Amino acid sequence: MTGNLLYAQSGGVTAVINASAAGVIVEARKQPERVGRVLAARNGVLGVLRETLVDTTALSDADLARLRATPGGAFGSCRFDLDPVEANPAQYERLFAVLAAHDVRYFLYNGGNGSMETCRQIQTAADDRGYPLTVVGVPKTVDNDIVGTDCCPGFGSAAKYLATSTREVGLDLAAMTTEPGRAFVLEVMGRNAGWLAAACALAAEDAHAAPHLILLPEVAFDEAALLARVRDVVARIGACVIVVAEGIRGADGQVLALQERNQKGYIQLGGAGEVVAERIHACLGYKVHYALADYLQRSARHLASKTDTAQALAVGKAAVRRAVAGQCGVVGLARVADMPYRWRTQLSPFEAVANLERRLPAEFIAADGFGVTEAFRRWCRPLIAGEDWPAFRDGLPDYLHLRLPLLPARLPPHAP
Amino acid sequence: MTGNLLYAQSGGVTAVINASAAGVIVEARKQPERVGRVLAARNGVLGVLRETLVDTTALSDADLARLRATPGGAFGSCRFDLDPVEANPAQYERLFAVLAAHDVRYFLYNGGNGSMETCRQIQTAADDRGYPLTVVGVPKTVDNDIVGTDCCPGFGSAAKYLATSTREVGLDLAAMTTEPGRAFVLEVMGRNAGWLAAACALAAEDAHAAPHLILLPEVAFDEAALLARVRDVVARIGACVIVVAEGIRGADGQVLALQERNQKGYIQLGGAGEVVAERIHACLGYKVHYALADYLQRSARHLASKTDTAQALAVGKAAVRRAVAGQCGVVGLARVADMPYRWRTQLSPFEAVANLERRLPAEFIAADGFGVTEAFRRWCRPLIAGEDWPAFRDGLPDYLHLRLPLLPARLPPHAP
Repeated sequence: MTGNLLYAQSGGVTAVINASAAGVIVEARKQPERVGRVLAARNGVLGVLRETLVDTTALSDADLARLRATPGGAFGSCRFDLDPVEANPAQYERLFAVLAAHDVRYFLYNGGNGSMETCRQIQTAADDRGYPLTVVGVPKTVDNDIVGTDCCPGFGSAAKYLATSTREVGLDLAAMTTEPGRAFVLEVMGRNAGWLAAACALAAEDAHAAPHLILLPEVAFDEAALLARVRDVVARIGACVIVVAEGIRGADGQVLALQERNQKGYIQLGGAGEVVAERIHACLGYKVHYALADYLQRSARHLASKTDTAQALAVGKAAVRRAVAGQCGVVGLARVADMPYRWRTQLSPFEAVANLERRLPAEFIAADGFGVTEAFRRWCRPLIAGEDWPAFRDGLPDYLHLRLPLLPARLPPHAP
Repeated sequence: MTGNLLYAQSGGVTAVINASAAGVIVEARKQPERVGRVLAARNGVLGVLRETLVDTTALSDADLARLRATPGGAFGSCRFDLDPVEANPAQYERLFAVLAAHDVRYFLYNGGNGSMETCRQIQTAADDRGYPLTVVGVPKTVDNDIVGTDCCPGFGSAAKYLATSTREVGLDLAAMTTEPGRAFVLEVMGRNAGWLAAACALAAEDAHAAPHLILLPEVAFDEAALLARVRDVVARIGACVIVVAEGIRGADGQVLALQERNQKGYIQLGGAGEVVAERIHACLGYKVHYALADYLQRSARHLASKTDTAQALAVGKAAVRRAVAGQCGVVGLARVADMPYRWRTQLSPFEAVANLERRLPAEFIAADGFGVTEAFRRWCRPLIAGEDWPAFRDGLPDYLHLRLPLLPARLPPHAP
């Protein structure tokens, strides 16, 4: 069977999702007897429904090398879920009309938990209607919360950036130590899973070094306990660095955020770091600064992990190999050994991955709830290993601006 | 004249202040006929008054190479101003008793505008009392607001980090574009001077690229004008990245910050970015994210500018040469040529620098007030040029943890 391959990006983008895109394109070009052209949809499955597609054939090897080192989603991403097929059959009619019009036989979707459900829906619908299609999910998320993989492409680079920032800010704060004490709060991503907050622990080389405390969404926030610990750290070394996952919750299950912000209907989930900073200042009288890394942490390609970029590339390539072999499912990474670290790709059924969420297991969380265990450090360390600097020009990273023209539409316009 | 040299760090630290320290130590070791030992005070002039001094003689060449690439203030910094001599003669008695007890003949103070006033006070007091001392100010600040120098060590690296982050987040936001529009606000340092916010303009390679708007403290904040501009940018390209200096003020001169935060007496000057983000969301209905780089921007040694680290090293070395030649004053950087960029060190009298503040000149600010001019870009571009990566170990920068023992006190204890 020969046909075109359609690739698309979904969900929050990362510093290395384009490395997966490059892996897909590079590998597909090695399979001319199976894959015709590699198309990509603008803005994920929305672009499929809208028939806003591009052809990657024009990309040179040099373009692909730059694409590999460019953050953000070069083809555009989306946050859009398909309806259940029985609730909206017309949506699927349109989807398969577009796939058929462009002779698509392979659909590779690069996204997170929700996107793997989209993969499952499309594969099921294709099978039900007898449309010859192989769907493969390509994992990506800085949150590391996808099931069926030892780690997620995107996580290692965000973790490396945040751990580096934590180490740097710890040195800054140590220099500025003044009476009666200082604290610094760094809020990082993680609504339900504390993987990124936990990764900041790698910054500490000894018991004096930052971060001194980590607040995880897996552990109920206890203000009194936190304040006591902050006071202890400041009494010992004069300053305290606290890493806060955005999604920490009180014992009542409520996300920590400024009341006022909630009332305003402010869209960003955040504020946990600011709340913690204000409580420390109000209750302990310390001078407190806080930083909110937000999108910076997931786009910091300038400090990517070499392990992560290699894995992002590899899952893209593996997805093509699975697709042309007719094997649908979600590509993941299996850990073969810790030291030296070795890994390989694997494939999981959609049902084992879609819409599930992987949180920090208990054995990775310190007994006191304010940090991580040695088992976590051992797991995490290889994922931030190695540097993979992008090319620089005029003092700044020389990223690719993809400007591929839309393919002429073969169907009437459609607004999903 | 032979005597010891005393070095100290003051004010907010930077990613490259320790490169200046390394420059001081390396150069002083080349002057054995003039300089005995290189001592350093813990926490700036506070450490002089407290007689908490260390001897840098034990530092190896390898230590100094690592010191050069380590952010934060390795000797500790302070925010402490001396009293006027007539108001507190005892303070100066103590200061000179410590200098005499340790045979200090050269005092090099690495700081910003206020620290240069401290230099002036100490030099004047030494001259008045006939104590043989040469004081030299070594500039450092990410704010770039010191007079008497074309640029300040520390600025170039923070500028490079912020411009890189702006470019990266711009790619992220472009991928996520959704209806009715998206905006991203990055709050950067700059209470009175907009140099760092302005530097983010270097990220934009064309009119579509981030940052789309820059809010400077030199330009009165006009909410209606901003909202109209944001709407225009979003109508054109779907998303808008706004860089906001922390110190932007309304036409009434009031710093923009959340009312609530002011009432709480929250110490950090900040909030301008959050206010701007909330106004955009409330008035235009866009999805808005914001990031607060805070200390991350001034400690990001992992992405230092090669120009900046070279200049930081050079001002340290030049300060020693001036000191041993008996020339007091503040070392600065003179621009010899723009393209190719050439520079040299220079010396200014304390009076021409101390307590003054250099803001963005009118010719660097775009006519509409929301950006910078080509003249600014030409000035700024060489300052972020070149990469000077620190060594990495286990995936993270391998920074120096200086652990020099305090010299035995020769005087009774003193609490400033």
